[in-house]
Amino acid sequence: MSIVAVEGIQELEEGDDLAAFVAERAELEDGDVVVVAQKAVSKIEGRVVRLDDVVPSERARELAGGTDPRRLEVILQESVRLVRTRPPLVISETRHGFVCASAGVDQSNAPEAGMLVLLPVDPDASAARLRDGLRERTGRFVGVIVADSFGRAWRQGTTDVAVGAAGVRVLLDLHGERDRVGYELHATVIALADEIAGAAQLVMGKLDGVPVAVVRGLDVAGEESARDLVMPADRDLFR
Amino acid sequence: MSIVAVEGIQELEEGDDLAAFVAERAELEDGDVVVVAQKAVSKIEGRVVRLDDVVPSERARELAGGTDPRRLEVILQESVRLVRTRPPLVISETRHGFVCASAGVDQSNAPEAGMLVLLPVDPDASAARLRDGLRERTGRFVGVIVADSFGRAWRQGTTDVAVGAAGVRVLLDLHGERDRVGYELHATVIALADEIAGAAQLVMGKLDGVPVAVVRGLDVAGEESARDLVMPADRDLFR
Repeated sequence: MSIVAVEGIQELEEGDDLAAFVAERAELEDGDVVVVAQKAVSKIEGRVVRLDDVVPSERARELAGGTDPRRLEVILQESVRLVRTRPPLVISETRHGFVCASAGVDQSNAPEAGMLVLLPVDPDASAARLRDGLRERTGRFVGVIVADSFGRAWRQGTTDVAVGAAGVRVLLDLHGERDRVGYELHATVIALADEIAGAAQLVMGKLDGVPVAVVRGLDVAGEESARDLVMPADRDLFR
Repeated sequence: MSIVAVEGIQELEEGDDLAAFVAERAELEDGDVVVVAQKAVSKIEGRVVRLDDVVPSERARELAGGTDPRRLEVILQESVRLVRTRPPLVISETRHGFVCASAGVDQSNAPEAGMLVLLPVDPDASAARLRDGLRERTGRFVGVIVADSFGRAWRQGTTDVAVGAAGVRVLLDLHGERDRVGYELHATVIALADEIAGAAQLVMGKLDGVPVAVVRGLDVAGEESARDLVMPADRDLFR
């Protein structure tokens, strides 16, 4: 398996044709997985908010703990449920069902100072659009994963996970398979798409603004979505 | 970055010299990261338990929910704190500070039917031993990560994470760095070792018994341990 960063992509703006930029700078092959940073997708989709346009609620002021309450207001608007709060830290559930810090709202690498970047409205659809665009431009059938950095309960540091996916198998389910001594692997479901997102992050880095990487040599074509990675409420021990 | 599985390693037994096996089958280079499955390490260290030798407690019977209470007894013995239980599912904290399902006790890929494999007593020390052994045999300075599959709160499927590490930077801390518009990235700490473990899992698979992979092309030499990945209690919102 190899992972290569796609370098030379310009600073992205709303309406930019990311598929064209990637097709120009990467020699894609069938079966490749193109991993794109959520922030790149959000920028071309115009999912940015100017802090000056935000009026904070009382609840946002409480949660801000002395930081900018307008940022907390945006986080509240992006949340359907608060999971944990310790001002100014908010861990909440987004409309997509993701549980993450700040509802995925991020101040770093925004287009300008004073702007926040939100998660795409439908990151699976964003992935599908990029996949279709790459097929049109290159003739190649690739998978696409939209990746974002999430914290984890009980562990330090973020890992990139899949918030959007198209054309890939997201979960590898080994139910019913048997190991070498005949033991049925009934608890083994691997979050392939999250591992791929994290692997790509290793080469994309954070600061150098490389928003796309190409993963080659995995056989993970499929038709699942990143929503399949969300734990159903009835199986969730941490609601 | 490339990741290659080290194939042809025999079924491992207590006392086996894993460093010798890896040195024989992989052309290591300075700066490579050797990722080894926790189960391989546990087997050579004799961290296995025969179910027939286990006498279950009343608490283990309660938690078993009709499954084998001896397995639950071993899980309880490996736990210092129960985090969530829904029989027969137990999520607990191990002596190492890891919060994971079944305290890392695993029935699959055990040496024989009727055996359980436990986490190494000190997986950072296990990683250091393998690193030293590889340096002796190959003259190469590599990093070593011991990887295990953990479930995650709110997300389906497991990803491999680092339970042991030697000679690698485990967390990449970007505090104080600035992005292109000058915003300080004060919340950005990346769990490098967990992303490397997950990336390696993509090529090691589960069923084909490949216990080692070599990651090349990352610049992650350092001197941290997997214990650095455990969230300190005072910062843990999910205790």
